[in-house]
Amino acid sequence: MKFTIQRDQLMDSVQDVMKAISSRTTIPILTGMKIEATTEGVKLTGSDSDISIESFIPREDDGIVYVENIEPGSIVLQAKYFPDIVRKLPQQTVEIEVDDHLNVSIRSGSAEFHLNGQDAEEYPHLPQLSTEQSFEVPIDLLKDLIRQTVFAVSTSETRPILTGVNMKVEDENLSFVATDSHRLASRDIPLKEQAQNLSFNNVVIPGKSLTELNKILGDSQESIVISVTENQILFRTKNLYFLSRLLDGNYPETSRLIPDQTKTLVTIDTKELLQSIDRAALLAKENRNSVVKLTTKENNQIEITSNSPEIGKVVEEVHAEVVEGEDLKISFSAKYMMDSLKIMDTDKVHIQFTGAMRPFLIRPNEDEQILQLILPVRTY
Amino acid sequence: MKFTIQRDQLMDSVQDVMKAISSRTTIPILTGMKIEATTEGVKLTGSDSDISIESFIPREDDGIVYVENIEPGSIVLQAKYFPDIVRKLPQQTVEIEVDDHLNVSIRSGSAEFHLNGQDAEEYPHLPQLSTEQSFEVPIDLLKDLIRQTVFAVSTSETRPILTGVNMKVEDENLSFVATDSHRLASRDIPLKEQAQNLSFNNVVIPGKSLTELNKILGDSQESIVISVTENQILFRTKNLYFLSRLLDGNYPETSRLIPDQTKTLVTIDTKELLQSIDRAALLAKENRNSVVKLTTKENNQIEITSNSPEIGKVVEEVHAEVVEGEDLKISFSAKYMMDSLKIMDTDKVHIQFTGAMRPFLIRPNEDEQILQLILPVRTY
Repeated sequence: MKFTIQRDQLMDSVQDVMKAISSRTTIPILTGMKIEATTEGVKLTGSDSDISIESFIPREDDGIVYVENIEPGSIVLQAKYFPDIVRKLPQQTVEIEVDDHLNVSIRSGSAEFHLNGQDAEEYPHLPQLSTEQSFEVPIDLLKDLIRQTVFAVSTSETRPILTGVNMKVEDENLSFVATDSHRLASRDIPLKEQAQNLSFNNVVIPGKSLTELNKILGDSQESIVISVTENQILFRTKNLYFLSRLLDGNYPETSRLIPDQTKTLVTIDTKELLQSIDRAALLAKENRNSVVKLTTKENNQIEITSNSPEIGKVVEEVHAEVVEGEDLKISFSAKYMMDSLKIMDTDKVHIQFTGAMRPFLIRPNEDEQILQLILPVRTY
Repeated sequence: MKFTIQRDQLMDSVQDVMKAISSRTTIPILTGMKIEATTEGVKLTGSDSDISIESFIPREDDGIVYVENIEPGSIVLQAKYFPDIVRKLPQQTVEIEVDDHLNVSIRSGSAEFHLNGQDAEEYPHLPQLSTEQSFEVPIDLLKDLIRQTVFAVSTSETRPILTGVNMKVEDENLSFVATDSHRLASRDIPLKEQAQNLSFNNVVIPGKSLTELNKILGDSQESIVISVTENQILFRTKNLYFLSRLLDGNYPETSRLIPDQTKTLVTIDTKELLQSIDRAALLAKENRNSVVKLTTKENNQIEITSNSPEIGKVVEEVHAEVVEGEDLKISFSAKYMMDSLKIMDTDKVHIQFTGAMRPFLIRPNEDEQILQLILPVRTY
């Protein structure tokens, strides 16, 4: 194998593929990165068996040449050293060559690295998915779906199914739902007509997979193709192939958690509320899991307080645009509330309460696609 | 106590003073920050008994008012929460007030914090230094002196005296020397006439104190006053008072370590050599403490190599401006060499070797004030 490649393109692909490579895998060859050169270009592969990522650098794209002098072949390189080597190469052009004894030479300017490679034949083959269950979404919308839900997955392995995000397609509507049983985050988007005959509701994608995918995808209005089989999901763009296993088990029915009435409605500036809860949380850190209290006051004022007897207390009033319905005193986790407010893209949010002991909803004021639910904390 | 203060100025001072406050101190009140308001302004104090820092915010400076409505008094606040509170306050103006029961109120906009304070009478008094041993240097030169030497102090407590930087004043010359017995860094600067009668050679300042001082001092050509007593050193600017204990014991005589002859002289581009050693060190990380080898070649070429049998090897040639004298093959710690090259401010450096088993010197090519010495590593 031999080729000459542009360092920046190689670096980008190496960084993407590294997100699937773990040094703690039980299959030794998976600590390496597979490099495959064909007449079309160079493909890098990384996998920890849960997630597999392939990144392709085409020989040329849009008239710009990225890879030259290709002699096809493949090799597996120790991933521990390769990213640092590429990053620190002195020149923009890099030559990679493998001899018959799996010795790899990496040359750039007057610097020359010689590494011991491993036989690419020993690298596991990635499964080829064949499925009719495919649909497309714009990349930036997929990134929104991930960002607005994945933070709410459970970090505890007590109920493993809750560490994933539930993806549903129904009636040409795509929804992501995540819950750790104390709060829930969901986001819907309409799908295009192509998804007419598509319907599934028990696809659960590990939160970690979505977090890594979100890091790799750049903001773009281009499409990404999502294909689902019984136990795997594939996200595919022109030069990226991101495969994740799915979680086993039945995702709980969450729709019945959503209260269908509102006793107190608050409409308030997202950022002002976020900052005031952030301040109240400062002194609540060591006290009952950062619990803050919200109280409706006269003249559309909302009071945010926290109290930690040994340290001190915080009191702040925030002016709300709307405060309607019953008076309310409610306590909740500052962290959950801040997580929810941070992913809102609108200046104002509606908060719908149904009493101090009932879950409450947070929605953007101009968008029905996002819904956040938080369970209050009992305080006496 | 009561005053109204500008948040940004308060924040800067709080951050400086925090550098002396440790949560692991054995004297509980030292986990707090002392705040003292006088008609002149507000003084913050932090101390871990090794380092004490006072930062003063004047009532007004250059016609700009920083503190208003002052009712003199003092209090000690828990340092764990205070910096975050100040950082997150909603408005630029902050009011701090203490009642008769040591309750502290911090108000900004509609946010109000109530903290439990401690009696400032219980806070230890900082020693007042009285000494004739004082001199002035420009702040930016002091920062250079620190930056160019402190990295070479020992991190091991085997010989505690080597964890400090030896400060000497002799013949109107100020020098800083640090060594961990494997390498040495020194920097001299001339003092102004005021230092005529000053002479000392066994002042040893803890490396940690200098590192913290360097973080606090901004780049400035203003002067800082340095005062030395038997066991303490004080650095003082208009609004800052930085006191550190000195290390006990005799600092070793280092001048005899400096070789007085040169068998091989190399003059080379600082950055090119640094980057090539950085690359060679990539594969040497797990192999004999990042040892790289330098070999003189024909045509003013220097070869930098490293070799880790299980991983691979790196070879790179760097063109030197001058290669004079005996041929040389020498091995040394890549880390020590990079540390030395990083603090050089000149484009080129002279490296003076006296054989493969002898310490070698690195100097800037246009400056005799900096001297770096590294002991080679034996390899067979």
